[in-house]
Formats: sequence, C-alpha cells, structure tokens
Amino acid sequence: MKIAPLSGFPEWLPQERLIERRVLDTLSSTFELHGFSEIETRAVEPMSQLLRKGETSKEVYVLSRLQDHARQEPAELGLHFDLTVPLARYVLENAGKLTFPFRRYQIQKVWRGERPQDGRFREFYQADVDVIGDGELSFHHEIEVPLTMVDAFARLPLPQVIIRASNRKLAQGFYEAIGIADTEETLRIIDKLGKIGPDAVTELLGEQVGATPAQARLALQLAQIRTPDASFADAVRKLGVSGDLLDAGLEELTVLIEGANELLPGSLQADLSIARGLDYYTGSVYESTLVGHEDLGSICSGGRYDQLASSGKKKYPGVGLSIGVSRLLSRFIPTGKLVASRATPVAVYVAVNDETERMHAEGVAMALRRRGIPCEVSHNSVKFGKQIRNADRRGIPYVWFTTAEGEQVRDIRSGEQYDADPSSWMPPIEDLSVQILEPQEEAEANTGGENK
Amino acid sequence: MKIAPLSGFPEWLPQERLIERRVLDTLSSTFELHGFSEIETRAVEPMSQLLRKGETSKEVYVLSRLQDHARQEPAELGLHFDLTVPLARYVLENAGKLTFPFRRYQIQKVWRGERPQDGRFREFYQADVDVIGDGELSFHHEIEVPLTMVDAFARLPLPQVIIRASNRKLAQGFYEAIGIADTEETLRIIDKLGKIGPDAVTELLGEQVGATPAQARLALQLAQIRTPDASFADAVRKLGVSGDLLDAGLEELTVLIEGANELLPGSLQADLSIARGLDYYTGSVYESTLVGHEDLGSICSGGRYDQLASSGKKKYPGVGLSIGVSRLLSRFIPTGKLVASRATPVAVYVAVNDETERMHAEGVAMALRRRGIPCEVSHNSVKFGKQIRNADRRGIPYVWFTTAEGEQVRDIRSGEQYDADPSSWMPPIEDLSVQILEPQEEAEANTGGENK
Repeated sequence: MKIAPLSGFPEWLPQERLIERRVLDTLSSTFELHGFSEIETRAVEPMSQLLRKGETSKEVYVLSRLQDHARQEPAELGLHFDLTVPLARYVLENAGKLTFPFRRYQIQKVWRGERPQDGRFREFYQADVDVIGDGELSFHHEIEVPLTMVDAFARLPLPQVIIRASNRKLAQGFYEAIGIADTEETLRIIDKLGKIGPDAVTELLGEQVGATPAQARLALQLAQIRTPDASFADAVRKLGVSGDLLDAGLEELTVLIEGANELLPGSLQADLSIARGLDYYTGSVYESTLVGHEDLGSICSGGRYDQLASSGKKKYPGVGLSIGVSRLLSRFIPTGKLVASRATPVAVYVAVNDETERMHAEGVAMALRRRGIPCEVSHNSVKFGKQIRNADRRGIPYVWFTTAEGEQVRDIRSGEQYDADPSSWMPPIEDLSVQILEPQEEAEANTGGENK
Repeated sequence: MKIAPLSGFPEWLPQERLIERRVLDTLSSTFELHGFSEIETRAVEPMSQLLRKGETSKEVYVLSRLQDHARQEPAELGLHFDLTVPLARYVLENAGKLTFPFRRYQIQKVWRGERPQDGRFREFYQADVDVIGDGELSFHHEIEVPLTMVDAFARLPLPQVIIRASNRKLAQGFYEAIGIADTEETLRIIDKLGKIGPDAVTELLGEQVGATPAQARLALQLAQIRTPDASFADAVRKLGVSGDLLDAGLEELTVLIEGANELLPGSLQADLSIARGLDYYTGSVYESTLVGHEDLGSICSGGRYDQLASSGKKKYPGVGLSIGVSRLLSRFIPTGKLVASRATPVAVYVAVNDETERMHAEGVAMALRRRGIPCEVSHNSVKFGKQIRNADRRGIPYVWFTTAEGEQVRDIRSGEQYDADPSSWMPPIEDLSVQILEPQEEAEANTGGENK
C-alpha cells in the first residue's frame, strides 16, 4: 500500500482539526446570531450550470462512474468550484419554499483542479454569507453583511480584519465620465494594480481600452484613494470628474462607510482600488486585510449583485461575502500561530488500577460524561506514573484515580490531588473544552503543563 | 437555466438542515465526551486505494479535470465511498504523529454511484467511530465503541436503538466444528437470511458450500438464536457443537453482552444471525435496530477487524461502528417525524419603525447578539402588524419594538408585551436556540404559535 499526501488536498492532524473545527463553529454561530440560516448543497452540479459563465479557468473536476460504460447519466456532473453557483440553483429550485430576503450561510468544501501552490488548494473550505431578495433588495443589506463578517472575525483568535470597500457604480461612473468606454475591461486591469503596479496598469489601459495618458492617470488617481472614513468623496470630487452614476456610487459608499463605522468603529474603510474583476457585481464591492498578513491577499471578499439568478421575468439580487477558510488557516495552523491547548477533547483521563476494576472506571467515566465532561478510560492498567504520562503527553489536564482512600482527581499541571465525587466534581470551565491559543499564551500553557 | 433536483443527491430546506445540523452536532459532542478526536479526510483517494479490495460494487465516482487533455495527473482520483478506506490511508500516512490507541471519529459525506432508491443515496453523510491499535488492541474496546453509539442515539430525538451483536469467531468456529469448509461464503449466505428466508438459505448453503441438510439446519439454528443477555451461550451449547474457536467466540460475546448491559442495561443484545458479509471482520460484529423502524435495516453497524491496514510487518487492528446518518434522517425529516421549533435560528425579530430609525434597531440587535441572542432586524419598515406576521410565519418567538414609551419586547405566542433593556433582557433558555421536536410536541408548539 503506497501512501503519499496529495498535493493541493490538505489534511490536518487531530489537534489541528480541533482548531479548524472551532473556527468553523465560531463562524456558524456568529452567522446564526445575525439571523442567517444554514444550507448545504450537494457537492455536484450539472456541468451546464458550472460552465454557464464560461468559468473554465476554475478547472472543474468532472465526474464519471467507473462502471458506467453506457453513460446512462442524464447530465454530466462536476464538483462545485464555489458556493455561489449552487446557491443560485438552490434559490431557483426552492424559491416557492424560501422566505425572502433569504438570509443564508453555507460552509462547505469546494474543489478546483488548479495547479496547487502556496495558499491555493484543490480542495478547500469556503464560508459564504448572502442575503438574496426576491425581485428587489434594500441597500441596507450592503452594510449588514460585511458587518456580520467583521463580527465573525472579531470572535476568532486571529489578527484584526479590516474590510475595505468600493462601489461598482462609483468606478464605472467615473470611467464613463472621463470617456473610457470599456469599463469592464478597465475594472479587470485596475484589479491587477496591487500585483503589477501603476506603470504596467497605465500601459495596459492604453493598449487594451485605448485610454489616453490623461485618462489612465485619472483612473490611477481614483484607485489610490483610501480613507478610513467618508472623506474619500471629497478626494474623488477634487479630481474634477462628475456624473450621475458616479454620484450615485459616491452616495452609496458614503452611506456604507458611515453606517458601518457608526455601528462598529474602525470596521470598514473606503478603498477605491478595489475593482473585483467580475462583471457580476453592481454596487458595493468588498475585500479585506488581515492586519500584519497583507501578503495573504483578501481572505474575505464579495459584493452586491443585481442578478444572482433569473427565472423568466423574476430576478434575484443579492449581496454576499465569502471567506477562504482553508487559505486563512494554512497561514496560522502549520506555522504554530494557532495551537490547541491539548491534542484531544479529553479533559479527564480515568486511570485503571487493574483490569478487574475496568468496569468501575467506566462507571466513573459515565458519571462524568453525564455532566458534559469529556473523558477517556485508560486503555491499559500499567503503573500510575505511566498512565499520568499518557495523559500529560496529550495535554489532558486531569487524571482520575480510584484509591484505597476513595475517588480522587489529580491536576497534572500542579500535581495537586484531592478527593472528588464523580457525580458532582466539575473542572473549571476553561479546562472543560479545548482552548485555542495564540503563540504567547501557548508558551505559558506549556510551562504550566510541565510543572508536575 | 433549467433546474431539476438530482436523484440520489438529497438537499434540505433551511428548517430541515437545522435538524440535520443538530443531529450531527449531537453525534460530534457525544463522541468527544467519549474521548474521540475528529478528523476529516480529503474527499478523494487514489483509485488504486479505492479499488484495492475489489470493491467495484460501490460504483466509485472517478474524477477528471476538464482542461486536462494531457492527463498529467500522477494518479487517477475517485471520491471516497466510505470513511474506512480513507482512515486506513490516514493512519498509515500519519502513524508517527498519532497517539495509539487512536480514537477517531469522522462525520463526512461519501459518494456512491449506485442506482438511487428509497433510503439509498449517491451522496450521504456517514458518522464513524473507531479505535485503532498499533500492533494490538485490547478486547475491552469492543464493549466501549458500541456503547458510545448507544449513548449518542440516546441523546437524539429518535426512537430507541438496540445494538445487536454477534462474533465472527463464534460463527466461524461453529461452521468449522460442523464440517463446513468455506466459512466466508457461509457467512455471506447467512447474511441474506433476513432478506431471502431460511428455505432459500438452506438451498444456497447446499449449492454454494456443499452443506448437507443437517449442516444447513445447524447453521440456521445458530442464526436463530437471539437473547437479551448471555443465555445465548447455553442455547449454542444445546446444539451439541464444540471447538476451541467456537469457545473463544462464545467467551468474547458473553463478556461483551454482560459488560455492556452492566454499564447500560438493555443496550446490547446477542443476535447470532448477524454475519456482516465482509471477510474483513475478525471478532465482534454489530448491527442495530431502531425500535418501530425495523424495516429501515441496520442504521449503525460495524465490528472488530485485525488488520485495518498494514505497513511492512506492522498491523493496525481496530473496532468501529458507522451510522448511516442520511438514511436515518430521510426517514424522519421528510415525513415530519422530526421538526424544528422554528424555521430560522432567529429568536428576536427587531422591528423598524421607520427607515430613519434603522441604525437604532441595528444597535438593539448588536446589544442582544453580544449576549448570544440570535436576532434579525426587519428588512423593511412596514406596519408593525405586518412585521409581527413576518416573524410569526417563521416561528420566531419574540419581536422587539422601540416605542414612544421606550424599548419593549413582545412574546408573539402569548401576545404579552413588556418593557425590556437590550443590554440585559434574556429570553428563557428554551427559546434561545431552535428546539428539535417530535410530532406530539410539535402539535403543542403550533397551537402555542397561533395563540397571539
């Protein structure tokens, strides 16, 4: 049996999965606090859906059945490469049974057959939050959804996240007002600013959308505006450009930045370099920065779109953001920047004196579990010292002993051992479940752990 | 955009997903209480792994990349059809980094390209618990793992589950003692007893393993022994058969049934008809019955195996059980036998008087969320009566109002409305999160809901 990891398909060790799981659970519970309902969609969609936007760059994985020589399948199926195509299909399929605005979150793995490289995987978790309207959707959701994400990040043991926003109407209105016709291509070129720099952008704007040096300069000046408050609007007006669509965009972005920062100061900044190269978006667009990890790129992005899906005359506009969870965690888990306080959920290791007393130990464990204390009964009855080491090696804080003097529990970290009743003893709340620690705390926890 | 559900790929509405999620979370937390660590493995395995047992009956889905004309892939990949093949590979790949006995649980979707039919899906959740030893594994884990499953079921809002057990040594020893040579084929035939009946089994035993009528009768007599306690051993001995392997099996099954029922009375029965048609198992084998839903078949099965995987001279024995979660839920969710107390996580719907007061309403929601109360701000500012109906239609229990007299909350079910402070008010704990109700309770909840 030849065994080798598959490039692009990350897997965690149990103590690392604990961290991932905690992060996913925190996202879930925050989204629910904000009134979003979870859905899960099947992993597969018909290829016709997956390719309808010409998204072949996503390198879809196509399925075939091993035994299916006759190809009886009604439709060719592929693995979803994001959670937006499935959402669109799900909304159309279930429209009559959903409440609109439909507030949904979805945390699932997606697959892309891309060449694996740093932070790019072939299988990874995305966490999406969207509000979908039936025909129409009020602007205030464009404030609400990014703030939901800010709240989620605030509950994670990660550096601060700042969401940066621009507005598609603002950019498009500006380009039109200065006489650039192909605004979509201009957005795609501006989107590369961070990667290729202003000179290359100027050149591309000249070559691909026929922008004069003056037009290119203005487009670049717009993209360089970044303010923590609504003062971006004055900076734009100073460029001497005006138009109705531009004004509408300025107004929306002003309401967004002011509203978000009134509710959560410091949560959103205006950043007019954000273009989001998808023709899909029609209003607010969002990217994000993890402070101190700017090189990671945007780990939470999205925007407002007027047409997630359409069915006959009906349109479904929406606004949503998506977190690249696996990319985020691949920065923090393997480097030890996030660690679990112990390698197992177990809080209490129940020692076994002798195999004849195993049933008694199982009874103690049952009594502890009944009150929500995760525990494990020693798999053997070797010397107590060795059983303590078994527990300590995995960071389990307590060992339970049945002694000649009665039931006792030992805090491995302090070495303190005292009488305890399995039907009433509780560890301190912070020992009950695994804690996710940032490095400096980890150092302390380790010291504690060796103090026995 | 043509939209049609895909046969065999079930999806839930949000209010149904709430139930599935609760069931999955309950399984998770129970497995952790019993000291099992979660792992997740990638969805794909090399085809060589997936097919190594000749398991082509599982109808593996093979992946290919859409753009991959040149087939640069080092190995052909397929979607896993269970969680055991991935576990074997994971254990070998990470053996040096795991603690043995390795106690792992895994709850993931698996895929099988089988013809969809009632309760059989192409994509479905499995929940597996296994203990894997490094070289050796004590018998007591064969008691522990099924009891973990019994505890998990006891925490779910489902009918009672009874785990039935037999022992591979017992059956094999019995067949050998009565002179049947091909014990593996005999096990496969006996495994069909429930489906095809004793006459067809007798015939098959004659045809395929050359059993005489007397041998077939004894094999059937063995398979008809079923006792809630260890009295099965006497029943077997009354058949007048003996042998060392049979004795070893009788001893193990006795220890299992007695031990399990001492710890959790009524949890395990002996059922010697259980054969589990896989040559894989070497000790205890388990199936289960959901009382009142016997036709569903075994929704939790497994056993002891001596060789999950091997690497050079090293063997990894284990014992595990697997729950077919999707099949189980497909019986209870669509038929309304399990319902969520409301269609959304939202406990409090914050009304908006007027769009100018939206920010105030968002502030109220923030204060409530800070104390863990899921809430949603009304997406519009229509008349209060309509906002209340919006909330009530989804079963949200409370609506928050900012009135001329101050902040107030209304219990929609009773119609009672009273002053409340968003920074301190808490709903009763049972209203905080969604409850999963069985039908009779649901009826009461509905009555309550219409009482406004």
